[in-house]
Amino acid sequence: MIKIIKMKKQIFVLVSLFVLTYSCKQDNTTTTAEQETSSISDPLPSWNDGKTKDEIIAFVKKVTTEGTQDFVPVEDRIATFDNDGTLWAEQPIYFQLFFALDQIKVLAPEHPEWKTTEPFKSVLEDDMKGVLKSGKEGLLKIAMASHANIDAEDFKSAVKTWMATAKHPRFNQPYNAVVYQPMLELMTYLEANGFTNFIVSGGDIDFMRAWATETYGIPSHRIVGSTVEAEYDNTDGKASVIRLPGVVLADRGDGKPIGIYRHIGKKPIFAAGNSDGDLEMLHYTDANAHPSLKLYVHHTDETREWAYDRDSPIGELNKGLDEAMAKNWTIANMKNDWNTVFSFEK
Amino acid sequence: MIKIIKMKKQIFVLVSLFVLTYSCKQDNTTTTAEQETSSISDPLPSWNDGKTKDEIIAFVKKVTTEGTQDFVPVEDRIATFDNDGTLWAEQPIYFQLFFALDQIKVLAPEHPEWKTTEPFKSVLEDDMKGVLKSGKEGLLKIAMASHANIDAEDFKSAVKTWMATAKHPRFNQPYNAVVYQPMLELMTYLEANGFTNFIVSGGDIDFMRAWATETYGIPSHRIVGSTVEAEYDNTDGKASVIRLPGVVLADRGDGKPIGIYRHIGKKPIFAAGNSDGDLEMLHYTDANAHPSLKLYVHHTDETREWAYDRDSPIGELNKGLDEAMAKNWTIANMKNDWNTVFSFEK
Repeated sequence: MIKIIKMKKQIFVLVSLFVLTYSCKQDNTTTTAEQETSSISDPLPSWNDGKTKDEIIAFVKKVTTEGTQDFVPVEDRIATFDNDGTLWAEQPIYFQLFFALDQIKVLAPEHPEWKTTEPFKSVLEDDMKGVLKSGKEGLLKIAMASHANIDAEDFKSAVKTWMATAKHPRFNQPYNAVVYQPMLELMTYLEANGFTNFIVSGGDIDFMRAWATETYGIPSHRIVGSTVEAEYDNTDGKASVIRLPGVVLADRGDGKPIGIYRHIGKKPIFAAGNSDGDLEMLHYTDANAHPSLKLYVHHTDETREWAYDRDSPIGELNKGLDEAMAKNWTIANMKNDWNTVFSFEK
Repeated sequence: MIKIIKMKKQIFVLVSLFVLTYSCKQDNTTTTAEQETSSISDPLPSWNDGKTKDEIIAFVKKVTTEGTQDFVPVEDRIATFDNDGTLWAEQPIYFQLFFALDQIKVLAPEHPEWKTTEPFKSVLEDDMKGVLKSGKEGLLKIAMASHANIDAEDFKSAVKTWMATAKHPRFNQPYNAVVYQPMLELMTYLEANGFTNFIVSGGDIDFMRAWATETYGIPSHRIVGSTVEAEYDNTDGKASVIRLPGVVLADRGDGKPIGIYRHIGKKPIFAAGNSDGDLEMLHYTDANAHPSLKLYVHHTDETREWAYDRDSPIGELNKGLDEAMAKNWTIANMKNDWNTVFSFEK
């Protein structure tokens, strides 16, 4: 047990470093027919009736009813969604880390020296203990080799290829199928009510943009994510942007309001997260002069998904949970509030 | 004459520094009725019939005709517009510089020491020669005092107040009225044909966002501009983002493809500029796998606007003009191609 905790701490340090080293915006495609249907029937069928669902629907009605003090004009109906743990799962490790490890295997034929060099040797031998043993420096090398010094479009192609082939170890589903059906419905519901949805993810902006448009129906310019240094290259007459080592925006914690400020230029009136890393985004939303709704997804379902919060090395929700309860923010209790977690359950 | 050239060079250096030190994204609001009208009647009434207008219309027809090799799906119809000299005028100096000088006067009561300290003394006495004499360092001080260490929302409010009161010295019109009617029509025409328009300006992103939505009908998240360092502040429980000295993105030259990459995540198929500072954006557009149109606005009308290109300290178009001619890019000759420049002419 102590060993597991120790390993978890190591994973936490590594994952934090990974996210810090490599840490999104687009247009939904809800048709008028879908909008009409959803406004007539239950717009949130995967949400159980109760306090949480009532709060969401009451908020949307409040800000969209003209002639009241709480009415929010369409151009200010900005909704921001964290991704890892809020829209898709983040266990047993952030999915982007699975990509990084798999990408090392893809790139290995070009790097014969990796067979005998750590941390690559351990990655190629599926030896996670060996990877962890290589420490921060090892993970940084994995991040660099899989994410840096590459044409941004080539990087997105690599992510797309991975997404089309890789499977989640527990669910044996493509990673972009391991997304929360109730949250997809929530995004569609907000869009149908004049909201503009944005992803504001700690994940890398190009990693997100490679698949999130198709999965969430949000165009690339509405996907905000952690952003690396970049340089323009036109040496061979083919203009492109190259991803460099170094981070311009670590889109978590304090970085989320900064990312929202830079990419959106307005405070949200609706924001959803699941961890302490989303707390500043919720504070920034709470500071909106318009009424706002702050939503925390609380991972309470160890049967259908995972149960974790205060002590989790991934998706720690401690300070945020206290504050959400004290301030009566909306909390989606996964076990109680969602009758469906993933669409593949059906 | 030599004196004027010398002064122009000085202005150029100062303006470059200003733009480097301080250097934009949103949704058009064309109604279905407007779209239908524009597709029936002439969509570009302020453009004279001829080669330039024909090229634009032929391109739009080409990329929107389904079933052909040149068809571009709606999600890839990205159009980017430079602002200074492309959408609004930029003479006799960049309008943002007028704002900076005016802002010093607004802030002067809080800074009694400015009455005796350069460059502020010269600004307050409307002594442009004195301002120029203070050199790079002086302009940097003006930029800092007017643009840095301020809540981003307070800064936008200051710009809005200025925009509502300041007048252009030649036209005696609000600065946001000194915009090119043919370019407004072009943006509406593209939007009606499924394009998503973005501003990609060398101007400061918050300066742009304070007025460009109203003027161009483009929401703040589709305005890209030069971007300053920022920090999140929640010390008094009121979450906000503070503008800091230092630049994250100088959105001109090489910076424009980087800004497009970060904010849009796709190469444009249509890009419009007017200076060598837009050339890299046009190269990046030209590198799109889809067909693309590169448009240069050429300032050739000294009667209705200004005539300048190769030797201009502001909006220099030299290398870009050669390349546009050699590669048969589209060139809007203001004098010949536009029957109206500004709507206030009528």
